Amino acid sequence: MSDPGHMGWDAKWGALMAWIVNTQYFRENLKIGSGGETGPINDLVRSTTERIGANIMGRRMFDQGEVAWPEEAPFHTPVYVLTHAPREPWVRPGGTTFHFITEGPERALSLAKAAAGGRDVRIAGGADVIQQFLNLDLIDEFEIALAPVLFHGGRRLFESLREPGPRFRIDRVINGPSATHLHYVRG
Amino acid sequence: MSDPGHMGWDAKWGALMAWIVNTQYFRENLKIGSGGETGPINDLVRSTTERIGANIMGRRMFDQGEVAWPEEAPFHTPVYVLTHAPREPWVRPGGTTFHFITEGPERALSLAKAAAGGRDVRIAGGADVIQQFLNLDLIDEFEIALAPVLFHGGRRLFESLREPGPRFRIDRVINGPSATHLHYVRG
Repeated sequence: MSDPGHMGWDAKWGALMAWIVNTQYFRENLKIGSGGETGPINDLVRSTTERIGANIMGRRMFDQGEVAWPEEAPFHTPVYVLTHAPREPWVRPGGTTFHFITEGPERALSLAKAAAGGRDVRIAGGADVIQQFLNLDLIDEFEIALAPVLFHGGRRLFESLREPGPRFRIDRVINGPSATHLHYVRG
Repeated sequence: MSDPGHMGWDAKWGALMAWIVNTQYFRENLKIGSGGETGPINDLVRSTTERIGANIMGRRMFDQGEVAWPEEAPFHTPVYVLTHAPREPWVRPGGTTFHFITEGPERALSLAKAAAGGRDVRIAGGADVIQQFLNLDLIDEFEIALAPVLFHGGRRLFESLREPGPRFRIDRVINGPSATHLHYVRG
């Protein structure tokens, strides 16, 4: 008998990502369908995406995306992948080029800043890479989508942090139907 | 040289609790001073407190409070303390009586419901007691105050949970200057 209260990992992932998958901007960007929500969450996704000039991510996030993203990967910027395995840059249509960085997070940030041309650098994830940049005190703000899904496992965002860490305050909250969007800034 | 970014445990605790300590309702209740904030957060504290007819808490929370609360403990209801150590009820002025329950969380809830007289039962904490009730699928809603303070330690709220767990949605958010107040209900 099915248990409507029991969600498998796929269903949880779907519930976690519903807020962004439902936005018109994301659907157009990923070419997964027309329509979609056009309110304040959509505006948030657009404005956050459009101010990013380069992305940084970890190897695990890249490995998962390499098989899951469409050919036109949804970044449209240079992407610096922190890895221990050297690899030639991987150019995708639509402006995304993945660069594989073996010299650590500060080198990745230096390259990303130079490439971003005055726009922002996003640490896309996963949690371990975000923790590395937090511990280097290089994070200026967070955009957190808090979805009420209990995963019972996985890497936590705020752990393995050194003391003293940076101090943040929450300066803006948007509550959507599938997630609460918290913007943390230094303070 | 002092590091303004470095907060000790006391300072972190103060930052965590600032949202409630600053409310007029809480200050009057705990008799820690006049004045205080009288806006939506104060209304939230009042309405949440006034619909509670009984409290349940863990032994560690009680032990900390026993030395920290004023003589007129700030509950004004029966309080059921989950413990392994039998003890006679402890009657405080102002309507708070602590009952020490050694028969487990379901027995505490049964007593609390009977005592609440139609009002709600609050699981006051700590995290381990909340987890016990979550794992018994006995939690109907959460009132979470999310404060942007990195503690680098302590018991996490959402861990040690059994699958399948209950499903929640966030139905109301109030953003205050010191915390974001999330109300989770079943859904």
